[in-house]
Amino acid sequence: MTLDDLTTPCLVLDLAVLKRNLALMEAAVARHPGLRLRPHLKTAKSREVARLAAPGFGPITVSTLAEARYFAEGGWRDQIYAVGITPQKLDAVAALNAAGAAVKVITDDVEAARAIAAHPGRVDALAEVDVGEARGGVALDSPVLPEIAAALGKRLAGVISHSGHSYGGRTIEDMAAIAEAERLGIVTAAERLRAAGHAVPIVSLGSSPTAMHAARMDGVTEVRAGVYMFGDLFQAQLHTHPAEDIAVMVLASVIGRRPERNTLLLDAGALALSKDRSTQAAPRDWGFGRVVGPDGSPLPGEPMVARAYQEHGEVHSDAPLPFDRLPIGARLRVVPNHTCLTAAAHDRYHVVDGGTEVIAVWDRVNGW
Amino acid sequence: MTLDDLTTPCLVLDLAVLKRNLALMEAAVARHPGLRLRPHLKTAKSREVARLAAPGFGPITVSTLAEARYFAEGGWRDQIYAVGITPQKLDAVAALNAAGAAVKVITDDVEAARAIAAHPGRVDALAEVDVGEARGGVALDSPVLPEIAAALGKRLAGVISHSGHSYGGRTIEDMAAIAEAERLGIVTAAERLRAAGHAVPIVSLGSSPTAMHAARMDGVTEVRAGVYMFGDLFQAQLHTHPAEDIAVMVLASVIGRRPERNTLLLDAGALALSKDRSTQAAPRDWGFGRVVGPDGSPLPGEPMVARAYQEHGEVHSDAPLPFDRLPIGARLRVVPNHTCLTAAAHDRYHVVDGGTEVIAVWDRVNGW
Repeated sequence: MTLDDLTTPCLVLDLAVLKRNLALMEAAVARHPGLRLRPHLKTAKSREVARLAAPGFGPITVSTLAEARYFAEGGWRDQIYAVGITPQKLDAVAALNAAGAAVKVITDDVEAARAIAAHPGRVDALAEVDVGEARGGVALDSPVLPEIAAALGKRLAGVISHSGHSYGGRTIEDMAAIAEAERLGIVTAAERLRAAGHAVPIVSLGSSPTAMHAARMDGVTEVRAGVYMFGDLFQAQLHTHPAEDIAVMVLASVIGRRPERNTLLLDAGALALSKDRSTQAAPRDWGFGRVVGPDGSPLPGEPMVARAYQEHGEVHSDAPLPFDRLPIGARLRVVPNHTCLTAAAHDRYHVVDGGTEVIAVWDRVNGW
Repeated sequence: MTLDDLTTPCLVLDLAVLKRNLALMEAAVARHPGLRLRPHLKTAKSREVARLAAPGFGPITVSTLAEARYFAEGGWRDQIYAVGITPQKLDAVAALNAAGAAVKVITDDVEAARAIAAHPGRVDALAEVDVGEARGGVALDSPVLPEIAAALGKRLAGVISHSGHSYGGRTIEDMAAIAEAERLGIVTAAERLRAAGHAVPIVSLGSSPTAMHAARMDGVTEVRAGVYMFGDLFQAQLHTHPAEDIAVMVLASVIGRRPERNTLLLDAGALALSKDRSTQAAPRDWGFGRVVGPDGSPLPGEPMVARAYQEHGEVHSDAPLPFDRLPIGARLRVVPNHTCLTAAAHDRYHVVDGGTEVIAVWDRVNGW
């Protein structure tokens, strides 16, 4: 079977690119002796990808209870469920742990920490610290941090931070500076809790750009990153991976031709691509995705999906589109702005290995 | 079971609101003698909703082959698959029709029309006409329109248009004017083909706002609309339904509290809500969704999800948030900007009937 045999729109994963991106991150992490990579599976949501990114059932990060269950049943025991836990979700986590998993949760709330410690099942937790993103996490100098640690008691597994504000950086130097600020922050938090008598075995930080470009990782035990596996048009502009190494694309068909307006309609719209507009804030704005040829090669004028309706994507280009090669039904690929969002619209990957032959179909665990 | 027993985030459908919205559209269509409503199931993607919106297995519209198959197998024979067809998809449509369905396709391309006519299976088609949206469809005065009709021959089932540009209107008068322009356009196209000797049994137009506010429908045989069933924050501002009658919401839990910044984090982010920003262009911009109480009632300061991360939604408010009533794990609802996009992230509806008791769980047919 080749890509030509697939019904569009559908998701294509290039194994060759995935492997290059994994090797690049592994090399980046290996620069720091003793540092462990805990890949975040929120982007891939696939056991087959996890076999490559976290081989030997290595430690992973997940973003939903559905992922935690799917990966635990697949053999990945050591997990961090890295979205603030609620007391209501503890039963589900404890059930996974009772069945052999070691799913750790995160919290930045004293009451939630008390609920974790009081739960009859075993659920260890990391205290979430804000290192500058201003999303979740307690401030470094907040009296709440030692209160959370005290409330967790022997359930305290460590400290965790996320440097999502690295997405606001633009240069490799920006990423290195944000990474160092994050490192200083999370290490300070760990030291603060150790000084109060707590064991803090896990000191966890991350984001793909900072994991790739951090200069130092002293005091950090593990780094989390997810989108680096596939990459996308936004991450490429954050220097997480080479611009050409985007592993996931949406295969689409031409369903409308407007030579007089130099536009095409594709059967990949807002549902198949998502309405993510990450690149709007980047040096190069790709609309709702970059349009390339059926084999992934660039097209003249660098067309993009400029408008996204539910099932229609309207393609605009700076050069005349090659209408003679683009009848109704012709295939093109759309490279995503933000792979996490685009992939989530699809329930499987059609896997190629650098070519157009479909060598496998891999499932995904969507939803919650 | 009540909403309190559900794991968040999840989708809630209020049957009482759905029934009101259905009745409102049925009354709007009934103002025009002889006019038939062909509900578009692209929003609901649910047989249970179709039982109410297209009772007695009445005519429906679909947007994907997956919907066509799901509804055909559920008993809805008379369908229009209202996204430009490709030759590659004809086998799938013909197979449904061979099994008893009558799925009609649409095209605005002469070569595609020839492929439809040449297909060994039975696939009838409507010629798509552009009435001002400038998305799909041939221009009214284009020589291509009669060419498509001639190429389709006995497979010509009618003419079809979509007035998606009504989403650019703001007043009821705008909607009525756009509806009348669409009516004139599609009736002119039908008359043009009839003058050329074609039977044109179906004259189909639509969009929720124009279906609701059209003053005349002379010459039109059927109207298509979909989002009216559920409504959303954008459609409310287009006057498609009363502001309070939005049938679908995302149930979410508080996962972070920042009294010092007057913000909350919910476990409904970009995946659970979508990144649709329709209301950005509307009089009232609701960010990524309006936040209301667990029973759907408004909150002081009219909070909204102002930032959407993959699994985190950050809530901002013009008034102090009631933190004393919002511990970690407290439930809130998020009203969607654009129901079609938000619902597509979820595989089921948790159905209530005006209260918080879950009276049913209805599935959805996502994907392609």
